[in-house]
Amino acid sequence: MSDPTPSSPNPFGPNLGLRQRAERLVQAKGFGQLIIGLIIINAIILGLETSPAIMASYGELLLRLDKIILGVFIVEILLKLYVQRWSFFRSNWNLFDFAVVAIALIPASGQFAVLRVLRVLRVLRLISQFRQLRIVVEALLGSLPGIASIAGLMGVLFYVFAVIATNLFGQGFPHWFGSLGQSLYTLFQVMTLESWSMGIARPVMEVYPWAWAFFVPFILIATFTMLNLFIAIIVNSMNAIEQANKEETSGLIQQDIQATHGLEEELRQLRREVQGLSAKLDPKDP
Amino acid sequence: MSDPTPSSPNPFGPNLGLRQRAERLVQAKGFGQLIIGLIIINAIILGLETSPAIMASYGELLLRLDKIILGVFIVEILLKLYVQRWSFFRSNWNLFDFAVVAIALIPASGQFAVLRVLRVLRVLRLISQFRQLRIVVEALLGSLPGIASIAGLMGVLFYVFAVIATNLFGQGFPHWFGSLGQSLYTLFQVMTLESWSMGIARPVMEVYPWAWAFFVPFILIATFTMLNLFIAIIVNSMNAIEQANKEETSGLIQQDIQATHGLEEELRQLRREVQGLSAKLDPKDP
Amino acid sequence: MSDPTPSSPNPFGPNLGLRQRAERLVQAKGFGQLIIGLIIINAIILGLETSPAIMASYGELLLRLDKIILGVFIVEILLKLYVQRWSFFRSNWNLFDFAVVAIALIPASGQFAVLRVLRVLRVLRLISQFRQLRIVVEALLGSLPGIASIAGLMGVLFYVFAVIATNLFGQGFPHWFGSLGQSLYTLFQVMTLESWSMGIARPVMEVYPWAWAFFVPFILIATFTMLNLFIAIIVNSMNAIEQANKEETSGLIQQDIQATHGLEEELRQLRREVQGLSAKLDPKDP
Amino acid sequence: MSDPTPSSPNPFGPNLGLRQRAERLVQAKGFGQLIIGLIIINAIILGLETSPAIMASYGELLLRLDKIILGVFIVEILLKLYVQRWSFFRSNWNLFDFAVVAIALIPASGQFAVLRVLRVLRVLRLISQFRQLRIVVEALLGSLPGIASIAGLMGVLFYVFAVIATNLFGQGFPHWFGSLGQSLYTLFQVMTLESWSMGIARPVMEVYPWAWAFFVPFILIATFTMLNLFIAIIVNSMNAIEQANKEETSGLIQQDIQATHGLEEELRQLRREVQGLSAKLDPKDP
Repeated sequence: MSDPTPSSPNPFGPNLGLRQRAERLVQAKGFGQLIIGLIIINAIILGLETSPAIMASYGELLLRLDKIILGVFIVEILLKLYVQRWSFFRSNWNLFDFAVVAIALIPASGQFAVLRVLRVLRVLRLISQFRQLRIVVEALLGSLPGIASIAGLMGVLFYVFAVIATNLFGQGFPHWFGSLGQSLYTLFQVMTLESWSMGIARPVMEVYPWAWAFFVPFILIATFTMLNLFIAIIVNSMNAIEQANKEETSGLIQQDIQATHGLEEELRQLRREVQGLSAKLDPKDP
Repeated sequence: MSDPTPSSPNPFGPNLGLRQRAERLVQAKGFGQLIIGLIIINAIILGLETSPAIMASYGELLLRLDKIILGVFIVEILLKLYVQRWSFFRSNWNLFDFAVVAIALIPASGQFAVLRVLRVLRVLRLISQFRQLRIVVEALLGSLPGIASIAGLMGVLFYVFAVIATNLFGQGFPHWFGSLGQSLYTLFQVMTLESWSMGIARPVMEVYPWAWAFFVPFILIATFTMLNLFIAIIVNSMNAIEQANKEETSGLIQQDIQATHGLEEELRQLRREVQGLSAKLDPKDP
Repeated sequence: MSDPTPSSPNPFGPNLGLRQRAERLVQAKGFGQLIIGLIIINAIILGLETSPAIMASYGELLLRLDKIILGVFIVEILLKLYVQRWSFFRSNWNLFDFAVVAIALIPASGQFAVLRVLRVLRVLRLISQFRQLRIVVEALLGSLPGIASIAGLMGVLFYVFAVIATNLFGQGFPHWFGSLGQSLYTLFQVMTLESWSMGIARPVMEVYPWAWAFFVPFILIATFTMLNLFIAIIVNSMNAIEQANKEETSGLIQQDIQATHGLEEELRQLRREVQGLSAKLDPKDP
Repeated sequence: MSDPTPSSPNPFGPNLGLRQRAERLVQAKGFGQLIIGLIIINAIILGLETSPAIMASYGELLLRLDKIILGVFIVEILLKLYVQRWSFFRSNWNLFDFAVVAIALIPASGQFAVLRVLRVLRVLRLISQFRQLRIVVEALLGSLPGIASIAGLMGVLFYVFAVIATNLFGQGFPHWFGSLGQSLYTLFQVMTLESWSMGIARPVMEVYPWAWAFFVPFILIATFTMLNLFIAIIVNSMNAIEQANKEETSGLIQQDIQATHGLEEELRQLRREVQGLSAKLDPKDP
């Protein structure tokens, strides 16, 4: 485990020793805390950078600090890559860390200036560093497959309603229903119930008085489906708990049934012994 | 089962053979996938048709493709009808497929131009083609009877509040409460909480200062009832799961009780044998 | 039970006979259906009366029909009173029927013209006539005690926030926070999230920039409390189901324990018999 | 327990007697009711003080009453402090009572005038006086740890989205996204779905047409996370109930298993006796 003779002739020795030392460093508690600290400092820096006044006075300092922290993150990930090799990429959280750091390395000038904004995604590394947050995100993502069917249904419904809305109201209200994309966006807004009536449906009804026959059913169907999506998550969660409890109870009852069957066997043996006793008595009779 | 002699004198032979071949075709996996593919292509075509620019360049092509796909759908349904005969109409999903294709055959000119828009309902056939979506829709429809009573109550409440609102505010705000229909629509908007106060209640209160005594109780009653409709679905779902679990546990306990009763029977027989033994011993006494 | 001799000297005879006949009439299925039919016709009439155009043409007819139906309702309730006497008032649904019919008898002229509007409450009699709706309303009312504490808490919170809002923003925004009543109404609107920011909080923040420190906590506290009110209903409902299931399962297990204890008793008796047998053998030894 | 000789030489005697008398006073039912009554009167006074008209006529009286009630509260808390000494501060509700009364003693002039408004927090003492309300508040606070992780996740998400929004839209819409604080407030508004589209997203999309790609994912993520926060509370509550029920059922089954094992023991003894019997019979054979 240790490397007592650094001058050992074993050609892999020093190399192994280096990897081990790197592994110890990466797994040290203090290392993780340092990274968390740097993520938080980075978050604060990125927050301060949004203020033009602060940028005017301390901009250069903040940008330099940002680059230093980015450098530490790159070294951290390279170290982990060196230690874990390809198994590094087996963990989704490692991939996530890798991706949000890699974004910063894309040259973000000219057309890609918007990518600079994505540097803040590095703050999301807090999630991958805290076990509690990781569990919550995994639970959230874990509930997605259970609602995939309902989401698929919502997709089909949205598409159908959007095509209808574009055909019906597109010419009258090009700003809201002029294209399929605009219709989809407007229907999303309607589904969130935001200004659906005063903002959208009532103006549309000024031109097409029967438009309520489109909006009211859409709202009823969309909210009822969303509601069932929500119910599906609750019922799935409860079902899992129920199932675990049921199995535990069943196991106990099975244990009791086993014990009873054991007794039955015991009793049968006893009976055979009594019958043997009875047989012993019988030959003496004649 | 097979039809080895196509020249058989049996007059139904060739006919049966044709139906069988049709049945095999209709039930083939590839056939179902073809239909799904065509529905998706049809959905894309209907989406593209909403764009005036695309219609100007490729309109004729799209419309022709649309007609070809519609033709395939008609052939598909005729085939299924030929294979399944009247039992075709026993499945609600078949009826659904039949209806959304039939809509396209109604001449959609003049007054019925709006029917053209309903061609997009054909996209909903995706639901009947995918088992997962079918299950979700059946679950959604299946939860309706459980909430029929609450929906009926909501209907009565809406009617009563709408009549009151029309009588009270109809003259002052003909646009919102001028007729029973307008009141129903406005109350639906109020129930969704969309602009209920800034948009409706505050302007009404300018004229009728006590109008809050109408709107606030309506919102409390309507949202509380809707909420209970929602709770009813959750509780119904959970209850079904609970019930199934309880029955399974009860079955196991019953099994345990049976085993105990089996023991009792065994024990009684043993006792009888011991008593027999005792009787054998007694006559020897004198 | 019957009254074969109407000329019987029994002084209560004819009277009893009349009550009996009234009882049979009131309890007849056709009578209930007639009342339901009249309530629905009454509902339609009250709906038609909201239309000035229809009132101009058929107003007199509708009002006369309304009076006739009211007359039938009064006779119905008098009959029930005659049959059931004071026990009539023991049923809350009877009291409800009595109240909504009695409202129509209050002279609704001059200052009380608004009472005319309450005639439509008669439509709510549909709820008392249909068992299913009655069950839903009883369930809704039954869930109220379980949420009384949370409602009380909401009341205290609303009062405190309303006093604070009136003191802080009353002078600047007399229309929204000028008096305690106006503040309560505005806070109710804020709790429903209707235009809380664009409509209320942002204008207030123009004058008092720190006003967000009032509105954001209020929204968080109010919605979190409302949400828990909602959760309380779900958990109460589920708990009742759980409890019933648990008791059933417990009962079964108790049954099994009883059976096992019965076996134990049986076994002890058997043992005593075997010991008796052993004693019989022993004296014979010497 | 009593103090029969007030002139007793015991130097702590009279003192003890005084504390006892104070304890009895503080614990008397009437004392609690007096305090509740004074809190309610205080609440009404604070409500009346919001009306300038009433203040003009009765202002002096109300302020004097307010001061008298405050005096009683101070005496009450001093009494409790005298009786319970430092253990007084062990109860969070006592600390709460202490704090809301202490606020009134801070000189609320000049810069601290806003503190005068906080006098109304005294009304919240109703919560600490009524057991039912105390239980609800404790349940609400008790559900917070279970949702701390999700709240932490929401915090991180909000921060990241706010930094992005400030960078992207800050220059174009300084009023909504000019600073990190303003972005956080606007995103909170968007999460509550208040005017998110007509009020915020659509105007932003006029300048940045792709802004929907920011707002729609934010709404989906934020509402889905909030929804799961809500689901977490339901599932936690149900889980606790389930767990208690399961343990009760398990206990019963364990009891059944014990009884079965008791039977086994009994059966073994019986078998030993039968074997003894068999042994007794065998020596007689030869």
